[in-house]
Amino acid sequence: MTQSPPWHPDAALSQSSYSAAELARTNDRVYLLEQRDLPVSEKYHVYTSAKGVADAIKTMVVRGAPAIGISAAYGMVLAALEALSLDAAGYLHAMGNAGNVLNAARPTAVNLAWAVSKCLRLAEEHAHSPGADRWQAMADLARQIHIDDVAACRTMGRIGGEYFPDTGTILTHCNAGALATGGYGTALGVIRGAIELGKNIRVLADETRPYLQGARLTAWELHKDGIHVEVLADNMAGFYMARGEISAVVVGADRIAKNGDVANKIGTYSVACLARMHNIPFYVAAPWSTVDLNTPDGSKIPIEERSRDEVAKVGGAVLIPDGVGARHPAFDVTPAALITKIFTERGAFDPAEIASGAAA
Amino acid sequence: MTQSPPWHPDAALSQSSYSAAELARTNDRVYLLEQRDLPVSEKYHVYTSAKGVADAIKTMVVRGAPAIGISAAYGMVLAALEALSLDAAGYLHAMGNAGNVLNAARPTAVNLAWAVSKCLRLAEEHAHSPGADRWQAMADLARQIHIDDVAACRTMGRIGGEYFPDTGTILTHCNAGALATGGYGTALGVIRGAIELGKNIRVLADETRPYLQGARLTAWELHKDGIHVEVLADNMAGFYMARGEISAVVVGADRIAKNGDVANKIGTYSVACLARMHNIPFYVAAPWSTVDLNTPDGSKIPIEERSRDEVAKVGGAVLIPDGVGARHPAFDVTPAALITKIFTERGAFDPAEIASGAAA
Repeated sequence: MTQSPPWHPDAALSQSSYSAAELARTNDRVYLLEQRDLPVSEKYHVYTSAKGVADAIKTMVVRGAPAIGISAAYGMVLAALEALSLDAAGYLHAMGNAGNVLNAARPTAVNLAWAVSKCLRLAEEHAHSPGADRWQAMADLARQIHIDDVAACRTMGRIGGEYFPDTGTILTHCNAGALATGGYGTALGVIRGAIELGKNIRVLADETRPYLQGARLTAWELHKDGIHVEVLADNMAGFYMARGEISAVVVGADRIAKNGDVANKIGTYSVACLARMHNIPFYVAAPWSTVDLNTPDGSKIPIEERSRDEVAKVGGAVLIPDGVGARHPAFDVTPAALITKIFTERGAFDPAEIASGAAA
Repeated sequence: MTQSPPWHPDAALSQSSYSAAELARTNDRVYLLEQRDLPVSEKYHVYTSAKGVADAIKTMVVRGAPAIGISAAYGMVLAALEALSLDAAGYLHAMGNAGNVLNAARPTAVNLAWAVSKCLRLAEEHAHSPGADRWQAMADLARQIHIDDVAACRTMGRIGGEYFPDTGTILTHCNAGALATGGYGTALGVIRGAIELGKNIRVLADETRPYLQGARLTAWELHKDGIHVEVLADNMAGFYMARGEISAVVVGADRIAKNGDVANKIGTYSVACLARMHNIPFYVAAPWSTVDLNTPDGSKIPIEERSRDEVAKVGGAVLIPDGVGARHPAFDVTPAALITKIFTERGAFDPAEIASGAAA
């Protein structure tokens, strides 16, 4: 564990004072911000193996679909270093294994598999090159994935920001911010984009049980940027919608199916239902890497089930009696029909038309 | 603080091994279960003044509309003891003061004001009696309020239990159980009633942030009774409704307005919206003492706002960064139109017809 930020001040691809994930200039270490300890402490873990990065993804040191995609790509850089002295066949075998381990870390977000598959395609192409060249090329690719993600966030931020009112309060669920991406954020990128357009935007952040990404992460990064944010328990959104205090909802996505159905953090579906009942626009923001045209609809998206104890305990506090179970689906699916627009770097889509972006 | 249960084994008016509130046989002490420490420990505070009981209500040692009504009545018994040697005028003044202090403890639940007002009517009637007689009569009244509440819960449990399917999973929000009443419970009383009718009922309990009454209290008391219960985060109910796993919803109430609008724990309104979107029956269970015919509709019900830190901290864990605010409305209002039936000891009412129960 190291204090923040461990990288050279000019080197953060996040374009920020903090990053969910960065590759060291020397290409031999990956820094991941320990997000489970935010907002209390801001520290980075240092990883030197793909397996270490996979464990970090599984245990949610790093989370957020784009950020785990970037982290996985950086993990593949470490795998290329570990395979430096292997011949082409050995290299491909090692990279395939590393890809499998990273892919298995979490099932729902498609960005992870998308990034690993880009890295494996590169590995195929350059398997016969010298080890050091393969390693450098893998680092270049991973950095490009990171750079492209930040650029995509900024673009969708400008596109989506246009849809917000000049003055209003935006509800968001979970954390789809700089911490969930390479930097800038998807849903929070749209909020930042609206503010850069001169709009007067305040944010209500669902705390987002059980991991409290809204309370801990969204509040932390918006407050750091001087954006007005208040936290509410997940069960309060309907109350404020009924009072007319919420202008729009914007959330991120872990996977967008071909028909426009969106998997995102558990609770997103309930917020979308409430938004519909109160005639409030419900927006999704995600990079194109989140769109999975191989998944026809939401029913085909695997929903990760996590452990009881992640619901039953917060810090040292026991919230549920021994012997009583807890449910813990980590994601849900919001049908396209409940979504007003999906913002990507390729434009603002009607959900049912998302597949048309493939040609963009 | 004393270990449980401090009263004589035959004396619990809750008809259970535990009670939210009991008056000592000697009429000079009130026992309140420390509900904030459940499920980790089961201990009772001992109170010897009305002010002490008011503080316990304010700080949520005891909560739940019927239970705080009973606790307030027991507080008035202690006030009558404190005023033992006063003349009629002094007694009425002291009882009026005690009533004001108790009434001010929490604004939303009407049962508190209802119980205090019953006690003050008795005080008017017997102000000229000897102090010991006044004290005993006040104890008799308070015990009767407790006994009537348990009887009402059992009756509405039988009435409401008829509406549940023979086999099904019932969602509940917050704790409207034995711990929230004199005993047996309102919403959980209906679940118990259905099971006593031979129905095969499983329970999903919303954890109910920020106080976690569902996770800590509903799970604790149903598990103690051998009723199958699992906890879910508040943002998960929509997910299980969409999957068809929830047969019906039942909740308690803190105040029912003349038009059938219902104030209850924050989040109830969101659950009612979700139930409507999924065509799932949404039931409310409450004793008649919760019906406030002087309140024309839900917009006139005062909604208590509690502190930021109750949302921002759980146990020792800090969930929200310093400098970031949190919203904390403690209740919301569910409009009559979203409620399928209201169960009371006077029958099952269409919400819009609740006022017809006044003649029962």
